[in-house]
Amino acid sequence: MARNLTLLTDLYQLTMMSGYFKSGKTEDVAVFDLFFRRNNIITYSVAAGLEQAVEYIRSIRFTEDDIAYLRSLHLFGEDFLEYLKGFRFTGDVYAVPEGTLVFPEEPIITVKAPVLEAQFVETALLNIVNHQTLIASKSAKIAYVAQGDSVMEFGLRRAQGPDAGVYGARAAVIGGCTSTSNVLAGQLFGIPVAGTHAHSWVMNFPSEYEAFKAYAAVFPDACMLLVDTYDTLRSGVPNAIRVFEELRAEGHEPVGIRLDSGDLAYLSKRARRMLDEAGFPNTVICASGDLDEYLIASLKNQGAKIDLWGVGTKLITSADMPSLGGVYKLSCLYPAGGGEVPKIKLSDNSDKITNPAFKDVWRIYDKKTGKAEADLIVVRGEVPDESKPLTIFHPKETWKRTTFTDYTVRPLTVQVIRGGELAMPLPSLADICAYAAREKESFWDEYKRNDNPHVYKVDLSQRLFDIKNQLIESIRGSHG
Amino acid sequence: MARNLTLLTDLYQLTMMSGYFKSGKTEDVAVFDLFFRRNNIITYSVAAGLEQAVEYIRSIRFTEDDIAYLRSLHLFGEDFLEYLKGFRFTGDVYAVPEGTLVFPEEPIITVKAPVLEAQFVETALLNIVNHQTLIASKSAKIAYVAQGDSVMEFGLRRAQGPDAGVYGARAAVIGGCTSTSNVLAGQLFGIPVAGTHAHSWVMNFPSEYEAFKAYAAVFPDACMLLVDTYDTLRSGVPNAIRVFEELRAEGHEPVGIRLDSGDLAYLSKRARRMLDEAGFPNTVICASGDLDEYLIASLKNQGAKIDLWGVGTKLITSADMPSLGGVYKLSCLYPAGGGEVPKIKLSDNSDKITNPAFKDVWRIYDKKTGKAEADLIVVRGEVPDESKPLTIFHPKETWKRTTFTDYTVRPLTVQVIRGGELAMPLPSLADICAYAAREKESFWDEYKRNDNPHVYKVDLSQRLFDIKNQLIESIRGSHG
Repeated sequence: MARNLTLLTDLYQLTMMSGYFKSGKTEDVAVFDLFFRRNNIITYSVAAGLEQAVEYIRSIRFTEDDIAYLRSLHLFGEDFLEYLKGFRFTGDVYAVPEGTLVFPEEPIITVKAPVLEAQFVETALLNIVNHQTLIASKSAKIAYVAQGDSVMEFGLRRAQGPDAGVYGARAAVIGGCTSTSNVLAGQLFGIPVAGTHAHSWVMNFPSEYEAFKAYAAVFPDACMLLVDTYDTLRSGVPNAIRVFEELRAEGHEPVGIRLDSGDLAYLSKRARRMLDEAGFPNTVICASGDLDEYLIASLKNQGAKIDLWGVGTKLITSADMPSLGGVYKLSCLYPAGGGEVPKIKLSDNSDKITNPAFKDVWRIYDKKTGKAEADLIVVRGEVPDESKPLTIFHPKETWKRTTFTDYTVRPLTVQVIRGGELAMPLPSLADICAYAAREKESFWDEYKRNDNPHVYKVDLSQRLFDIKNQLIESIRGSHG
Repeated sequence: MARNLTLLTDLYQLTMMSGYFKSGKTEDVAVFDLFFRRNNIITYSVAAGLEQAVEYIRSIRFTEDDIAYLRSLHLFGEDFLEYLKGFRFTGDVYAVPEGTLVFPEEPIITVKAPVLEAQFVETALLNIVNHQTLIASKSAKIAYVAQGDSVMEFGLRRAQGPDAGVYGARAAVIGGCTSTSNVLAGQLFGIPVAGTHAHSWVMNFPSEYEAFKAYAAVFPDACMLLVDTYDTLRSGVPNAIRVFEELRAEGHEPVGIRLDSGDLAYLSKRARRMLDEAGFPNTVICASGDLDEYLIASLKNQGAKIDLWGVGTKLITSADMPSLGGVYKLSCLYPAGGGEVPKIKLSDNSDKITNPAFKDVWRIYDKKTGKAEADLIVVRGEVPDESKPLTIFHPKETWKRTTFTDYTVRPLTVQVIRGGELAMPLPSLADICAYAAREKESFWDEYKRNDNPHVYKVDLSQRLFDIKNQLIESIRGSHG
C-alpha cells in the first residue's frame, strides 16, 4: 500500500510554502504541535495513526506528474517548483506512542523542522491522526462496556471509503477490538479476521434448514449460523439446533449463532435457553446490528446472554462524533539568524488559545497504586524531580492546586524521526495493542466510564504558564 | 491510484463463496440491489461513486500474495483457492448515473452475475457508494442553502482517512461544491483547487501587517487575506485594507478577506462596510469555521455579507449523519437448471422488507412543468405507456392513489457493465456535475428544502406489488 500521498494536502500549504520560499524563510525552523482542543466532548483519546503518519512523512516526493500538475495551476514560480523537486522532510518528529491515552491540549505529535517542511505536513498528519485516534477512542469506549467480551469490527461497508475501513479496522484493534471482518485489514496488519454468512446465504437455498446444513457441511468446525432471516425463535434457532445435532453426530462441535435484528436482550435470553436445553451450553451467541457503547451497556444491564459483539457502522464512523477536531499549531520559531521565539494563537474563546513553546508532556503516577493521577505539560527539557513534592495547578482556575508527594513520573513522548530518518523501530500492531491495554489499566474507571467521567487533570508547568501569560499580555497590549 | 482492492471485503463473502463453490452453485445467477432504506432520515440522495465502483469491479484479481494470505487462514480448500486465482467479474451491472437524485428503496446499482461474483462485490460496492452518495447528498443540501454562492470543500484534515478526503472531495463537487482545498483530489479529478494562507502564516511574521504584505508580494493578483488571527475588526481588516491600498497603488486588485472565527454575521457586515468605505466594494468575503447547511441558512437569514463559503468538517464527514446505511440485497435467482425465482427478505419491521425481482426505476415528469412528480419501481421490462393515464399508489397505504394524464417518463438506470466489460463510456466529472445540476433543477424546492420537505412518491408497479405480496404470504404461511 505504498501510495504517493504527497499531494494529499490543502492548497494553502503550498501557497504558504511558496510565500516562505520567496520571503527567504527556507532556513527558519518552526515547531508545530498536533493536539485536540479542550472543548471537544471527549474524556480521553487513544492515540493512533503514528505509523501511517511516519510512513507518509518519510515518503514525501513530488513526482514529475505532481510538478506538472502544480505548474498547471499558474500559481507557482519555476524556482519554487524546482525547489519542490528535491523536497524531502529533514526535520524531527516527537510523538506519544500509539495506544497512549491522551487528553485535550497535549501534543500528540510535535514537528520541529524548517518552516516549509513543518508547514507542508500539516494536512496529511491531521487527516491520518484525527481519523485513527477517533476510531481507536470510540473502540476503547465500546470495549470498556463490553467488560472483557470480544468485540469484532464489522463496519467496512459503512466506512467513509476504503481507507476509512482499512485504517479504521487497525485503529479499532488498538482501541480494544479483537478482530475485524475486513480481509484487507487482516492481510495488511495481521489482525484476526472474523465472519461467517449473511442473510443472502439463507435466501439462496430453498429453506433455512438446507442453508444451515450446507454451511455446516463446508465449515463443520467453524459453524456459526445467522438465525434471523425469517423468524429467529420459531425458525432460525430450531433449524440451527437441528443442524448442530447433526454436526455433533458427525463428530463436530458447533460454534454458535448470530442475532442481527430484533430485541437482542429478549432473543438472546430465549435462544440461550433453547440452546442449553438442546445440549449446546458451550455455543456462543453473537449479536450485531447498529450496536454502540450505549446499546451494549443497556443489553448488559438487561442481562442479555450475548458472548460476542459485532460492531459496525457506529464504530467505524464514530457515529455520534465523526471527527476529533485535532489541530496543528505553530508553537515556536527558530529564525535562521538565531534565537527562540515562542508563538501563541489568541482567541476570544480562551479554550482556543494555544500553548506556546517547544513542549513535552509528563504523566504523574501514584507510587502506591501505580495509577495515573495527572499530566503536566512542560517546556521541553523540564524534568519533574521525583524526590521533591510536586504541586500542580489548574491552568485557568489557578487556586485549584494538587500536591503529589509519593509519585513517579514518565515522559509521554518519544522521538520517532531525527533529521528525516526513523529514530527508533516502530512497534508491531500486537505490541501497540498490548501497550494500549496497559495504558487503559493504568487509569481509574472513574476516568473511563462513559457517563459523567471524572475530568483528568492536564496542567501546565509554572514556567510554561508564565511564558504563555507573558505572550498573551504582550500581544493584547500591542493590538488592544 | 490503481490500487488492488480485491481483499477489501468482509470475510463472510469469502466463506459464503467457498460454500457456494462446494455446494455446486457456481452456475447459478443472482440479482442483488444496492439501495437505501426508507427509514433513513433523508429526503433525497445524490447518487455518487459509480465510477470508482466500476473501476473496482473491473480490477478484481486475487494476486499470489492474496491467495497465500487466504490460505494462511486455514478456512479454505485448495480447490477454492485455485478457483479464486482465475476469478473475474463476468456479470452485468445496471446503475443510475452519478448525479441522479435518488430516493429510499430505489436500486442505485443492480448486479446480475453468477452468485459467487455477485456476492463477492457486495462489501466494496457498499463502501464506495455509501460513502460518496452520503457526501454528495450532504453537499447538495449545503449548496441549496448557499443559494448560488460558491461553496468550497475544505475538510481534508478532518476526513476519515485519505480516501475519505479524496473521494469525499469528488462527491462534494458532484453534490454542488465548486472547488476543494484538496490538491490530490484536484490532480486526480480535475476539480478546481482553492486556498490561500492559515493563521500560522501570520504568526510566522513579526506583525500581521508584515505577514499580509509578504503574502501580497507573492500573490499580488490572488490576494485573499485571513483576518482573524489577532483581532478581526481592530487589526485584521485594517491591516488588510492597508495592504490592499498598497497593492492597488502597484496596479493590482485584491481578491478579498476570509473570516474563520467569531460572530460571522456581525463581523462580515462590519468588514463589508469597512472594505466598501475604503474603496474595495468588489472584494469578496469568505467565511469558514464549522459551517453546515443550518449555520449557512442562519447566516443568510441574518443578512451576513458573505460571498463565498468554505465548508470543512461537517461536510466531509456528513457530521449529523455520517453513514447512509445502504444495503445490498438478493432480489432474484436464476438457478443453473432454469427458471426465475424472485427473492424477498422479511422483517418484523415492514420498512426492512425488501422488494423482490429483477427491477428497474422510472421517473414520471409533469409534461407542462418538466418537474419530477414521482418514481415507479417496476419489474425490469415493464414500460409505462405515456399515451395512457398512469395511476400509482402508495405501497403500504394503498388507498393513496395519484393518476397522471399529461406526463412523460424516463428510465433512471443504464447498463454500465455487460459480461464484465464496460457497456458505455463513463462520463467525465464535469459532465456528471452538469447532469446533477439539471437533476436538482428538475425537482420542486418543496422536495429539496432541509426543514420538513415534501416526501417524494416512490411507488411499486401493480405487477411488482403483487409479486411482493404473494412472496410475503407464502413465506409467512410456511414459517408462521
